[in-house]
Amino acid sequence: MKTDYSIGIDIGGTNTDLGLVDSNGHCVVIQRFATEDHGNAIEFVDELVNQIKMMLSETGIHKISGIGVGVPNGNYYTGCIDNAVNLNFKGKIYLKDLIQERIDVNVVVSNDANAAAYGEMIYGAARRMRHFIMFTLGTGVGSGIVIDGKLVHGFDGYAGELGHAILHPNGRLCNCGRRGCLEQYTSARGIKKTYIELLQQSGKSLTEEEMEKINGKDISDRATQGDVLAIKTYRLVGDALGLAMANAVAFSSPEAIFLMGGPVKAGEVLLEPLRKSFNDNILSIYKGRVKILISGLNENQSAILGAAALTRA
Amino acid sequence: MKTDYSIGIDIGGTNTDLGLVDSNGHCVVIQRFATEDHGNAIEFVDELVNQIKMMLSETGIHKISGIGVGVPNGNYYTGCIDNAVNLNFKGKIYLKDLIQERIDVNVVVSNDANAAAYGEMIYGAARRMRHFIMFTLGTGVGSGIVIDGKLVHGFDGYAGELGHAILHPNGRLCNCGRRGCLEQYTSARGIKKTYIELLQQSGKSLTEEEMEKINGKDISDRATQGDVLAIKTYRLVGDALGLAMANAVAFSSPEAIFLMGGPVKAGEVLLEPLRKSFNDNILSIYKGRVKILISGLNENQSAILGAAALTRA
Repeated sequence: MKTDYSIGIDIGGTNTDLGLVDSNGHCVVIQRFATEDHGNAIEFVDELVNQIKMMLSETGIHKISGIGVGVPNGNYYTGCIDNAVNLNFKGKIYLKDLIQERIDVNVVVSNDANAAAYGEMIYGAARRMRHFIMFTLGTGVGSGIVIDGKLVHGFDGYAGELGHAILHPNGRLCNCGRRGCLEQYTSARGIKKTYIELLQQSGKSLTEEEMEKINGKDISDRATQGDVLAIKTYRLVGDALGLAMANAVAFSSPEAIFLMGGPVKAGEVLLEPLRKSFNDNILSIYKGRVKILISGLNENQSAILGAAALTRA
Repeated sequence: MKTDYSIGIDIGGTNTDLGLVDSNGHCVVIQRFATEDHGNAIEFVDELVNQIKMMLSETGIHKISGIGVGVPNGNYYTGCIDNAVNLNFKGKIYLKDLIQERIDVNVVVSNDANAAAYGEMIYGAARRMRHFIMFTLGTGVGSGIVIDGKLVHGFDGYAGELGHAILHPNGRLCNCGRRGCLEQYTSARGIKKTYIELLQQSGKSLTEEEMEKINGKDISDRATQGDVLAIKTYRLVGDALGLAMANAVAFSSPEAIFLMGGPVKAGEVLLEPLRKSFNDNILSIYKGRVKILISGLNENQSAILGAAALTRA
């Protein structure tokens, strides 16, 4: 098979990463520039296109099969970014059109969690799977759903927002304005919130500064070292995520559920209660039939690989 | 277009209905026999095949394009009925094979809610839709999910069990052995349970016999006549179903959600609180974009039409 290249772009609030990816899923080169340096979308796309051209020129690879972009609120059907909360450029950005005006190639846009799911299927541990769900745990919680070997986009391109499935009606206030969304309990921020609540309930008073300082790695380190409240924190996270995953199984009956992102690095302190909750909450017909797996992609490249994989969607 | 016929079979615990359906969705003839008269699957299939042969002989239509069967716990991939709770014949029944040994034609088996969804798409109000979800409210709550114009079966054929998504952890004990499943709050039985609970909370003591007698139609009639507790019952049903539907939207971003079944006949006493709950609980990106619709199929034929539609899946 002739080697074929595509470009994967991961647009985050702080940085934009782009990489040239071959058909075996190797990143030939990776570049980064600051998203937040650009106050409007036109300027941003100008810089992005310059970066792409520089990358192609430096590698001597001029023929690419497409450009895939993973971006918060990226819409597969329209190629737009719609009101992404964490980006400087607000409103509706016609990203696909803006790129194609400057580079004449196939451009595919989707949200970052969809890209992660597709990357797993094309280059990762879901290579032979046709039915699976990816949960990405980070600042928020995203999800990408693959059914019959295809990403689910839905009627208007917004499928797979399982981080905003309501788990606890009247629960924690979410950034989306509603209460009790899964992401309030299982994102990095949600985990920190739970740990601080447990500390406070145990009688410890914390200054704003002390609260600010606590991060996910601290909590997972403490849990591994036997800190009772940190362990309890991950048990609650596992309880919540296991229930949400069991409910997701009742929807699409997947072969596996994948996990990706910072909080997953906590390892068994999270995974053990998660497996228990999943098993307790899953309907009997699915019991023992759905694997819980960690993403098989190199963490530093997963977002780029996922975005590049979108060109094969 | 030449008229093409298929046979739709709806197997219930009490009766089995079968009908000859033309390509426009007209039932040419319908027959019924008692499922419960047959203690084992072989006997049952013998009777079923006799009924089919009788139907074809009486109508003079001998060429059919397939037989579709909607049955509780019917599996699309294997063609089996797996441990259906309400049928006399237990264990794994190789229904598709048993029929095909006797009649040489394409046979498709799926569960009754999947059949309902597919019937809606082929013959009903979802005719031009490629993304929708059907909730069937009856003794239990079933669901059928259509994505990209195809029924979702999942990895092992059990997708779409949204009646068993857990809505209230530690809630009402469900027949499935877990707690808080949607069907415990929104099935005919669940609605009756809520109404009786509210009556008892209001200080009314009910005999077993009085409780036994109350049926769904009573409760909806009372609600329409202004009975406060009956109205509150349907508000609670609407709250639960609206939340579950909003969560389902976050999964597959459908164009519409359809409702079918006895409890839906309550009309506005159910639909008004349902719409409110759906609207309150839906993530903003979907707001105003997902229709709530009642099945467009003739109620007496919908199960047969759905089963017949499966042959076109």
